[in-house]
Amino acid sequence: MNKKKLIQPRVLKGFRDYLPEMMMPREQLMETARRIYRSYGFAPIDTPTLEYLEILTGNGSEETDKQMFKFEHGKHKVAMRFDLTIPLARFAAKHIGVLGTPFKRYHIAPVWRGENPQRGRYREFMQCDFDTIGTKSIVSDIETALVIHDLLQAIGFDKFSIRVNNRQILNGLLEKLDLLDKSTEVLRALDKLAKIGREKVAAEMMETAGTSEQQANEVLQLAAVTGSNDEILQQVIPLVAGSETGEAGLSQLRDLLAAVSAAGVSDNNISVDVSIARGLDYYTGTIFETFLDEQPGIGSICSGGRYDNLAGLYTNQELPGIGASLGLDRLLAAMEELGKIEKVATPADIFIPYFDPDSLHHYLKLAADLRAAGLKVELYPEAKKLGKQLQYANKRGFRIALIAGDRELAEEVCQVKHLATGDTSTASIANSSIEVITEVSRLLNL
Amino acid sequence: MNKKKLIQPRVLKGFRDYLPEMMMPREQLMETARRIYRSYGFAPIDTPTLEYLEILTGNGSEETDKQMFKFEHGKHKVAMRFDLTIPLARFAAKHIGVLGTPFKRYHIAPVWRGENPQRGRYREFMQCDFDTIGTKSIVSDIETALVIHDLLQAIGFDKFSIRVNNRQILNGLLEKLDLLDKSTEVLRALDKLAKIGREKVAAEMMETAGTSEQQANEVLQLAAVTGSNDEILQQVIPLVAGSETGEAGLSQLRDLLAAVSAAGVSDNNISVDVSIARGLDYYTGTIFETFLDEQPGIGSICSGGRYDNLAGLYTNQELPGIGASLGLDRLLAAMEELGKIEKVATPADIFIPYFDPDSLHHYLKLAADLRAAGLKVELYPEAKKLGKQLQYANKRGFRIALIAGDRELAEEVCQVKHLATGDTSTASIANSSIEVITEVSRLLNL
Repeated sequence: MNKKKLIQPRVLKGFRDYLPEMMMPREQLMETARRIYRSYGFAPIDTPTLEYLEILTGNGSEETDKQMFKFEHGKHKVAMRFDLTIPLARFAAKHIGVLGTPFKRYHIAPVWRGENPQRGRYREFMQCDFDTIGTKSIVSDIETALVIHDLLQAIGFDKFSIRVNNRQILNGLLEKLDLLDKSTEVLRALDKLAKIGREKVAAEMMETAGTSEQQANEVLQLAAVTGSNDEILQQVIPLVAGSETGEAGLSQLRDLLAAVSAAGVSDNNISVDVSIARGLDYYTGTIFETFLDEQPGIGSICSGGRYDNLAGLYTNQELPGIGASLGLDRLLAAMEELGKIEKVATPADIFIPYFDPDSLHHYLKLAADLRAAGLKVELYPEAKKLGKQLQYANKRGFRIALIAGDRELAEEVCQVKHLATGDTSTASIANSSIEVITEVSRLLNL
Repeated sequence: MNKKKLIQPRVLKGFRDYLPEMMMPREQLMETARRIYRSYGFAPIDTPTLEYLEILTGNGSEETDKQMFKFEHGKHKVAMRFDLTIPLARFAAKHIGVLGTPFKRYHIAPVWRGENPQRGRYREFMQCDFDTIGTKSIVSDIETALVIHDLLQAIGFDKFSIRVNNRQILNGLLEKLDLLDKSTEVLRALDKLAKIGREKVAAEMMETAGTSEQQANEVLQLAAVTGSNDEILQQVIPLVAGSETGEAGLSQLRDLLAAVSAAGVSDNNISVDVSIARGLDYYTGTIFETFLDEQPGIGSICSGGRYDNLAGLYTNQELPGIGASLGLDRLLAAMEELGKIEKVATPADIFIPYFDPDSLHHYLKLAADLRAAGLKVELYPEAKKLGKQLQYANKRGFRIALIAGDRELAEEVCQVKHLATGDTSTASIANSSIEVITEVSRLLNL
């Protein structure tokens, strides 16, 4: 026999295969995202996996830099994209003249980061972004919230909270406290509030931003504001009073809440949270994070915000915008834990066992009739014993078997067997199998 | 002003951006492929973009090897996949115990090849494969032909031809001619028939395979057989007579043609072509190529065939199978040339101009009503002049505008304007906008 040395079929650390059971819900999530994005007029784009290294490192911190998969190809330094935002900036700088503004795009594609793979983090994962660029209108902020809302509802979640804030509120307060030039450090510390607690955040602010204890406390006072959305807005008024920036931010936040409510979003699904800062420097207005009520521990599953200038590294044209990113893989993991994923290994509902090669044409015709009616059908390719074939069908998760042996075919019928219950009826396969199609559609609740 | 040096927003040679106008039909093609694959019970999988280099080079020719994007990451040599077949082999070797057989999978994902980008070839392109593994049954060969057929019909083509052959016919002839040990060279030469003509192919066979002139002529005699499918089959009988392999191949081909006909495929869409060999060594039975009648010059848009052993490099388990690959980007280019692609830059049909910030909630409500009815609606985010907004709508390719100024809103109506014809009617926006939804659906022929 074959004694040659085999190559071990292993996968690189931090990467993974998707078997059908996980790939089907993943595809479904992406389809839902596409449907919702399109329903708001967001159009798809795609950009190359590889970009010139200088484009990706342009504004990257050292940390981001180290995480890149980069190499030399020919005489060029290239790297695999590590997010979809920098490619969007490069894309917009290159094409905005043709595209015009406002430009609304979505982009669903994998990104790569060389970070140490642990705690369910992978080096290759899917991002699922949507952005509106070229407008400062609050309408786009409102729509971003509505898209997140519709998306989570369409995926099947009712209990979630879009937490919204406005960076200008924070900036207004920092302005009042004379800390505007330390905002990066202050906000980076503030972002850790949920993780490390009030005291450690205050200590970090004093250490890295050089704030006084009182300044740190005033920032933390803002972050500690709680209550209903209206109550929070009320409490924020005095904290930003006198700062034009802060008052403008508060006013935008108020308008956004009123508008999403008018568009039908329940108060249960949107809440003001003045503690979220989203560290990244480029956010300048509305910011979002989204949590599942039943699984707050997995973190935000959809985050984003408004920025003043997307593509300043590549063009002098100012491109303000707003966008958010759905954490597809994180969401998938959450859905799996919540039992929201049906574990099946086939996309087809209907299984046709194969008895007799002489009857093959009948099976093919039956399958073709059902497919023409929009149904998904698998014909088993080998004439094994019926028991074996049904075992295969059950293991894969088919719901219905259409059984047609010699006797049935002679009578132009087949047995329609519901695999979970075992219930069986008989239906005619004459007239393009209309009777079978009707019965199967009834069983599948179509 | 900003005087800093900008990074040029350029794209690597051989790579490209997809703007909405091209990305939308590309997404639609992928969706159609998924729908048809699923309708036959093929399930999606995904594999990592990066694999260990040894896995990808395992059976690669020198040529393939050079085309790879490969680099070192940490202490490992890695490379970007250059097709979806080797990842499938590695995947099957790793998981087939869990998956069971027969295993039917599809995989739609990009691949990378460093070859010199020219004549519309790119270094990054999408592959769209489906395979059935773990069975030698002719039913899977038949289904492969049916999937190709249904796929092209679903994409919108009527005039295409699936050219089918069986490698065993060729092998039978080579066996009779005592050329079996030269089959690789002979078939490689034969594959060039359409490109370089009969004489040059004969010369190449004599040179590289060391055939006699008579042997070369007998091989070319097989390839020259023409006529209807039945006529071709008749003419092949004597050429393979006496070779068990050749007769088996002919019999399989006959069965396949009869079966796809029984399943409803027109003779216009499937034709025997005994000249196709598909150079790759691993094909062992049925082979397919597919050509558009109106654009034969672009080459085969869907090719594949049967193989005896998919994953021999990675496992001792024998995995026979059959599959094919849709040339998505090539097909897209063909559709563009044939004018089969509607050039629009928005996925939404309906446009709502924005007049007055005080009326924003009405617009949001109207848009929400339409989306709840499954319609796709974009609200313009800025209160520009109506003319400007409609210009934007026309440029993007929206089909309908719902115009609601103060006067309309006071009467709880909007104007429904068909943008191509200019026809305008008035509809009520009361009662969840039912009247507007009905009118819009009529105009969009939904």
